[in-house]
Amino acid sequence: MAFQGKKLINNPNGCSISISPFINVVTEYIEGLIETYPGLQYLDGFPEVKVVLRADVSSATYDKVAIISGGGSGHEPAQAGFVGEGMLTAAICGEVFASPQVDSILAGIRAVTGPKGCLLIVTNYTGDRLNFGLAAEQAKSEGYKVETVIVGDDCALPPTQGIAGRRGLAGTILVHKVAGAAAAAGLSLNEVAAEAKYASEIVGTMGVALSVCTLPGQVTSDRLGPGKMELGLGIHGEPGAVVADLQPVEVVVSYVLKQILSQETNYVPITRGNRVVLMVNGLGGTPIMELMIAAGKAVPQLQLEHGLAVERVYTGSFMTSLDMAGFSISIMKADDAILQRLDAATKAPCWPAGVDGNRPPAKIPIPLPLNRLTKSDEMMSRPLQLSEQGQILEAAIEAAANAIINLRDDLNEWDSKVGDGDCGSTMYRGATAILEDMKKFYPLNDAAETVNEIGSSIRRVMGGTSGIIYNIFCTAAHAQLKANSQSVVTSKQWAEALEASIAAVSKYGGASAGYRTLLDALIPASAVLQERLTAGDDPITAFIQSSEAALAGAESTRHMQAQAGRSTYVSAEILASVPDPGAMAAASWYRAAALAIKNKLEPS
Amino acid sequence: MAFQGKKLINNPNGCSISISPFINVVTEYIEGLIETYPGLQYLDGFPEVKVVLRADVSSATYDKVAIISGGGSGHEPAQAGFVGEGMLTAAICGEVFASPQVDSILAGIRAVTGPKGCLLIVTNYTGDRLNFGLAAEQAKSEGYKVETVIVGDDCALPPTQGIAGRRGLAGTILVHKVAGAAAAAGLSLNEVAAEAKYASEIVGTMGVALSVCTLPGQVTSDRLGPGKMELGLGIHGEPGAVVADLQPVEVVVSYVLKQILSQETNYVPITRGNRVVLMVNGLGGTPIMELMIAAGKAVPQLQLEHGLAVERVYTGSFMTSLDMAGFSISIMKADDAILQRLDAATKAPCWPAGVDGNRPPAKIPIPLPLNRLTKSDEMMSRPLQLSEQGQILEAAIEAAANAIINLRDDLNEWDSKVGDGDCGSTMYRGATAILEDMKKFYPLNDAAETVNEIGSSIRRVMGGTSGIIYNIFCTAAHAQLKANSQSVVTSKQWAEALEASIAAVSKYGGASAGYRTLLDALIPASAVLQERLTAGDDPITAFIQSSEAALAGAESTRHMQAQAGRSTYVSAEILASVPDPGAMAAASWYRAAALAIKNKLEPS
Repeated sequence: MAFQGKKLINNPNGCSISISPFINVVTEYIEGLIETYPGLQYLDGFPEVKVVLRADVSSATYDKVAIISGGGSGHEPAQAGFVGEGMLTAAICGEVFASPQVDSILAGIRAVTGPKGCLLIVTNYTGDRLNFGLAAEQAKSEGYKVETVIVGDDCALPPTQGIAGRRGLAGTILVHKVAGAAAAAGLSLNEVAAEAKYASEIVGTMGVALSVCTLPGQVTSDRLGPGKMELGLGIHGEPGAVVADLQPVEVVVSYVLKQILSQETNYVPITRGNRVVLMVNGLGGTPIMELMIAAGKAVPQLQLEHGLAVERVYTGSFMTSLDMAGFSISIMKADDAILQRLDAATKAPCWPAGVDGNRPPAKIPIPLPLNRLTKSDEMMSRPLQLSEQGQILEAAIEAAANAIINLRDDLNEWDSKVGDGDCGSTMYRGATAILEDMKKFYPLNDAAETVNEIGSSIRRVMGGTSGIIYNIFCTAAHAQLKANSQSVVTSKQWAEALEASIAAVSKYGGASAGYRTLLDALIPASAVLQERLTAGDDPITAFIQSSEAALAGAESTRHMQAQAGRSTYVSAEILASVPDPGAMAAASWYRAAALAIKNKLEPS
Repeated sequence: MAFQGKKLINNPNGCSISISPFINVVTEYIEGLIETYPGLQYLDGFPEVKVVLRADVSSATYDKVAIISGGGSGHEPAQAGFVGEGMLTAAICGEVFASPQVDSILAGIRAVTGPKGCLLIVTNYTGDRLNFGLAAEQAKSEGYKVETVIVGDDCALPPTQGIAGRRGLAGTILVHKVAGAAAAAGLSLNEVAAEAKYASEIVGTMGVALSVCTLPGQVTSDRLGPGKMELGLGIHGEPGAVVADLQPVEVVVSYVLKQILSQETNYVPITRGNRVVLMVNGLGGTPIMELMIAAGKAVPQLQLEHGLAVERVYTGSFMTSLDMAGFSISIMKADDAILQRLDAATKAPCWPAGVDGNRPPAKIPIPLPLNRLTKSDEMMSRPLQLSEQGQILEAAIEAAANAIINLRDDLNEWDSKVGDGDCGSTMYRGATAILEDMKKFYPLNDAAETVNEIGSSIRRVMGGTSGIIYNIFCTAAHAQLKANSQSVVTSKQWAEALEASIAAVSKYGGASAGYRTLLDALIPASAVLQERLTAGDDPITAFIQSSEAALAGAESTRHMQAQAGRSTYVSAEILASVPDPGAMAAASWYRAAALAIKNKLEPS
């Protein structure tokens, strides 16, 4: 099935010829690039001349060797994304997958080359070699000092490829970095060229594609069928050396590493015991997650199977092929001098950050930190003797839990009308667990810790959103009680704990009053409790009145329309037929607890 | 057509259960991330606890507010790629598109939170809100200072979405940066939380998808057909608010900007005349080229249509949805304080580099630099009176050109056996142009400039590889003659020019001796010339002997097999039947020139 490739470009058919015959994807790309990076500039030469250069460099005053690269577009961020102090001085952009023209290259050379000359770093494709070559010779005619290094790092094909030679792939980016750092260090053109040439000789690359790329305005090829991949691809959609069944990534990585490091082709002078750097380069359509997974597989294989010390790892998309899915791996031999160049600071926006500096041979993960509250020598346990508050707390918890247990079927019935019908069963599980755990180990004389343990019981058995909501409720109350109360908790402190719990549930749950949740019972309860206590009412009366407000609030949810979208899938008639089960459950346990406390303190 | 999505993961079916039941894509991703970035570490808690944290931070000694974020994986580089000094202190990773568990979040809080406390930045999804919420409350119970800011920057859906609220999208990354910079500046928890909350209130985001994402081990959905896009998507593959026909990118960008800045929803407090920052965020499968094009369209629209000053542009992949194709745009209101936070240095590896600093209101491209050799007052022209050397040069050029003209049909015939049969015609075009141009304007008394003009004539009419090769040949000779000779060129200097030309053609063309090219004639010619001149022979004899070597070299190409792969498509029998036409053409013009010079200097 071939279909038109989808592209976010100005005209989905490729280039925006409807706007202007002279504007195309590459010029539009450069415009966006320049908008993004204040340190980059471009030459006023669209459409033929597409040159991105450092905004701070002028050939008249530039006192370093200029580093220039370029080639066909479609490999972004290469090359323009690597323009910046310490890397490229200018990048010459061709059309997609087409070499830039000589005039464009020459304009770039003239724009940035000062008395120290320039180095052209050219990927080994005939068009690039010839156009950069002619531009180099013309620039020399004009009196510029020019050196050229051609990079052919591909390790996919056997050595006898004659006039074409090995293709230039992502290893070129490492050559840019070495050359750019050498130039920034003030070296002469000959010295910079020698470092770049050496770098090009110690790097090897091989790619793997899961899909082919789609050129703007063209149909997506179905060359690679489902379940297939290409090994040793070209970066312009050229067919790979081998088509194979898709394999686990560590098998693919193993194959690629063996090809690059093959003693038979001897493409890179790397042998057991050497130090290397690794680049895992995405081809455009592959997410970072997959690239990182490949990097995570490559490092131990290089260390253990090939006996190499991996000094740096560069994972990201550096030299892509439009939207191709897949990656390439580059291995460069490393010594202190190379590492110094690779680590040197650069302002090139797309050189990876945070990758410099020595890596430990292996990273030992950090041990899990301990819970600050873990007290191994004083485990939670039910006190032998309950304090007065402990007795009241026990009575309140027991009454609240029993209220939920008794309400199970009603809750399920109401929930079946507006939800999935398991509210009663879920709450029942929590309530029975609380009763059991309380007998076993709740430290009832410590109200704060007991509230915390209720949360743990709930978390252990309830699950789901209601479980985590009640766990948050208890945990917030625990934190508040712990911070603000002594062993005996005052009514005011209980009220503040309720308020903190409601705030936490509202914040993390995203609900507020009127959303048909437990908050519709607890918010009015909290408001009345605070109001009565502030007014100086006796605490028991205040609690009882507050629990009446909770019941009224729960009942009022019948009439609440779904302002919130939460219940937009249930009609207003059905909503009006029952109260919100969560709100009614909260009101019920709250009411039962209040009555139990009253009974305990004012036995009738 | 639904087919299995292709992923570079350890097991193509999703997670590598064949290796270990406890290793999955997210843990493997973290392992690769840690290998790539020496400044990152992880907690020893796989598989449940997947926490990435700064390697240099320990909760016992950390004297800044810790900034912690996290959420489901599949959004890489978010959030772990933003861990680093000046941004996140830790990132808590859930499974793909699933919130991390409370224990994992709590472990992260305990690992990095010092006396100044921590800020949790949470994207507004129910699972994230509840799990981070419970972890926050439990951490408070343990005595940690914890604040939470929930980010819901989505502008795609109308305001009344109730309990779910607006989704957290890529604007979250900007909130991280503001909070991280505030924390790095030494501010208190309350101050950092206030800055983060403010930042979350001034940013809006909307996304556009061209494809849906594929979960590991699942089939690729065909929900979005060819030519369709979704506007206002969720980052977990949730359907967008609107499905529309694919439009030119500037139309898409315009729609998205209008939605974000809508005065009707009033999601972001941005009005005409304000300053803003722009983030163009790729969704995983979209290449940088397309993101940059979108950024290039968004900036002028924000400036001209919305009357906003665009202070910074962040273009890249920051918060993705696996391999989804598309982008989101975020707009944040900016003032000096916000810009200071966004510009502050950070070691977070995936925060974009090179984007800080004030942007000019518009970038004026740099004028094209001039050709150093352009001399407007002394145009090239044929001298009225030819010097002795000028006369010899004219005779040599005329003879060489005529030799090629006479050889046209032979060259075509040979080429038709081994190539595309146009070698004679192509060379003929060059030769006739040289004869015409020479009469009009070759400055024959200046040998170096005349050679350069021959290159220009060739370039103008010949085209193709042979045109650029001969242009390189002439340009290299020109540069060499210009650098090393005076008005009269010695034989030795001519020989050195020939050597330089051969070196340039070999370097940029990629061929060497034996590849069946013009070099097979010119390399032996150059060798004999140098040898004879060094031996003290008289120059005319040396040139004549050299030209005989050229002819012999061209003839010998019959017997040359293609060591080089260049001619692997032609059988050895056919190769042996004719000389290489390019080599024979070169030998012929060289021989004719040598004879003409001899005739001129030693008339018989």
